[in-house]
Amino acid sequence: MIDIDIEELCAWVRECGDVALHMFNRARAQRKADNSPVTEADVTIERILVERIAARYPDHGIIGEEQTRFDITKECVWALDPIDGTASFVAGLPLWGISIGLLHRGVPCAGLFYMPITDDCYWAVNNRAFLNHQPLTVNTTPEHEWDSEDWLAIPSDAHRRLEIDFIGKTRSLGSVAAALCYVARGSALGAVLTHATIWDVAGGVAILSAAGGVGITLAGEPFDCATMIDGRKVREPLLFGAPAIVEALRHHIRARR
Amino acid sequence: MIDIDIEELCAWVRECGDVALHMFNRARAQRKADNSPVTEADVTIERILVERIAARYPDHGIIGEEQTRFDITKECVWALDPIDGTASFVAGLPLWGISIGLLHRGVPCAGLFYMPITDDCYWAVNNRAFLNHQPLTVNTTPEHEWDSEDWLAIPSDAHRRLEIDFIGKTRSLGSVAAALCYVARGSALGAVLTHATIWDVAGGVAILSAAGGVGITLAGEPFDCATMIDGRKVREPLLFGAPAIVEALRHHIRARR
Repeated sequence: MIDIDIEELCAWVRECGDVALHMFNRARAQRKADNSPVTEADVTIERILVERIAARYPDHGIIGEEQTRFDITKECVWALDPIDGTASFVAGLPLWGISIGLLHRGVPCAGLFYMPITDDCYWAVNNRAFLNHQPLTVNTTPEHEWDSEDWLAIPSDAHRRLEIDFIGKTRSLGSVAAALCYVARGSALGAVLTHATIWDVAGGVAILSAAGGVGITLAGEPFDCATMIDGRKVREPLLFGAPAIVEALRHHIRARR
Repeated sequence: MIDIDIEELCAWVRECGDVALHMFNRARAQRKADNSPVTEADVTIERILVERIAARYPDHGIIGEEQTRFDITKECVWALDPIDGTASFVAGLPLWGISIGLLHRGVPCAGLFYMPITDDCYWAVNNRAFLNHQPLTVNTTPEHEWDSEDWLAIPSDAHRRLEIDFIGKTRSLGSVAAALCYVARGSALGAVLTHATIWDVAGGVAILSAAGGVGITLAGEPFDCATMIDGRKVREPLLFGAPAIVEALRHHIRARR
């Protein structure tokens, strides 16, 4: 059992959501070294969350997208993405949110993802996952029943990076955590990621795992967050969904050279 | 000058938005003959809009996604999509809305698209386009300045239907009208459609045209709504954006056999 106060965390992410909403539709982005955007909202929210978490959980480490690296060799480390989907946020699109994951020895064991526009708070702790107060469970539709209305969450560079042979729809939501949460709630059949970092997957993977989902590489190996805890990016395509779904999807997705 | 009461229309779509929001997150879909989903919200909203428009504009025709075919040979015809993005609506995704277009001799001359989740009302009349009260203008970034953060709205079957050679991001929003409106506001560089019907393009094309955008086929021919007014579907890929953008994009997108 992980001893954290999930209600307090939910209150914190909602408060940060208000900060973000206040800046939505007038966000101006700077570019980071990798050309990805960062806004005042990202920086402000990371500062708020780091202050709160450091004060409340002084024995834990913290890593955040916007520079925070604090005791990341601790047994428990928080991984924060103050706005997962910053490009969507800047584009005026609604799919973005605040992601928090707690890793215990490199394994995501609790997570929250709050989407201010829809007021949806996804969270998981002690192997149970919820959207607001509704329990979540992944989609397990067997391959022979997939049809044109089933959908996969795919990354926004899929047109360059992947060949996808799938009967249904594909959607790039613009937020890794949103992709994982729409799989966790059984709406999307699965998700494919081409760029994973610990701050954008930790919360979503905790939620997805608690909803019965798993992550694997295209080669079929289990996806392991522990290797990413120093902030390194995984560029190998990853698949998320129910165990039988990801195994079936592997044969429908190919990395382009 | 088109003599319609745009403020009244804005009030009607907001009212319909409340009906849709009330059913969001508990929508149950039936499948239509083409396997696409339809919900009680689609049917209810189309009925409300048809009643209002028929009473207020008795000399005009109306065509709607959910079966309405009313005097479509008239000089002025309204094209209604009560929920453009029904699959998104059913999936719990935020990108869907109520689309209304007015065609004058087959040319979209006024349009509204209301997205209840973000409370965004896009509208155009007399060749001026707005998001709420803010004037809209398309993105005209020349091709040599496109970078990894520029984005295209693409359809959810792009993985089967298109080869896309584009330096930036691609996103399938799940709503044709939303795709056209994100182009109209200059957020997306352009949009590609693979399935166009008069009810899902009429409103968006009116808004996009008034914001300085055009539509062309992949072969470079102007896109013409007049041929679609009987409800037929255009399956040839179409490109929308600023004139120079769509001309440049043509060389980056190819239909798969």
